Amino acid sequence: MSLDGAYDEANVFALILQGKIPSTKLYEDEHTYAFLDIQPQSKGHSLVISKWSRARNILEVEDEALAQVMATVKKVATATRKALNPDGIHVAQFNGAPAGQTVYHLHFHIVPRWAGGPTGFSAHAQGNFADAAALEALAEEIRAQF
Amino acid sequence: MSLDGAYDEANVFALILQGKIPSTKLYEDEHTYAFLDIQPQSKGHSLVISKWSRARNILEVEDEALAQVMATVKKVATATRKALNPDGIHVAQFNGAPAGQTVYHLHFHIVPRWAGGPTGFSAHAQGNFADAAALEALAEEIRAQF
Repeated sequence: MSLDGAYDEANVFALILQGKIPSTKLYEDEHTYAFLDIQPQSKGHSLVISKWSRARNILEVEDEALAQVMATVKKVATATRKALNPDGIHVAQFNGAPAGQTVYHLHFHIVPRWAGGPTGFSAHAQGNFADAAALEALAEEIRAQF
Repeated sequence: MSLDGAYDEANVFALILQGKIPSTKLYEDEHTYAFLDIQPQSKGHSLVISKWSRARNILEVEDEALAQVMATVKKVATATRKALNPDGIHVAQFNGAPAGQTVYHLHFHIVPRWAGGPTGFSAHAQGNFADAAALEALAEEIRAQF
């Protein structure tokens, strides 16, 4: 998928927001939703999305939606740090398949990093689905820090 | 450098904002500044920073500064796309050395991506400094698209 095209109302994140696909919630407010990535690049890898913007990517997003999403990225990064004590936090946002985008509803990745661990996004990690019960236990730890 | 510590008033980006170190400007407004990375991960790799926030990372940044920076990230991504026609755009923000941070003034990377090209951040690219005249010519192309 390229940088152009129409918003797909049935993309995975739209379905998550509609409750048609389950997700492991970390945080939610009026405008944004944060949940754990089911193909984590590291322990605690989460995603933040807008609940109302139909932007596929950063080129299309409303400034207001972007500001709301980023305020939540900061909150989730802070809670994740308190819960898991990573040595670093990698924030990433991909636009278009050649940049690594796989779901076409604007989202930010929050990836905890540990010294000596991986620093990039690996295709291998993307192929491995996390255990749902383990994600829920992890989410409980992080949710306790908001 | 870890996620903790004091803001260093003499960090490279603070010195760029003070005009004590040269930079190749793409865009500037009251609150933010965008310029080309001198160790580009791809053609057109740029950085966006706040002109007033003394946040080292996303954990410390004021919501207002973050919103201002992100509005500029969107503007720069849009102009870069118009100028260079990449197939994708990778937005990244690193917190702490284990996540790839090297300058401790909050900044967002905007990295154009082309199909078949690299997708991650490479240490090799980080070791290579771009030619100043080439950066200036590139900046002129991008500035024309704001």
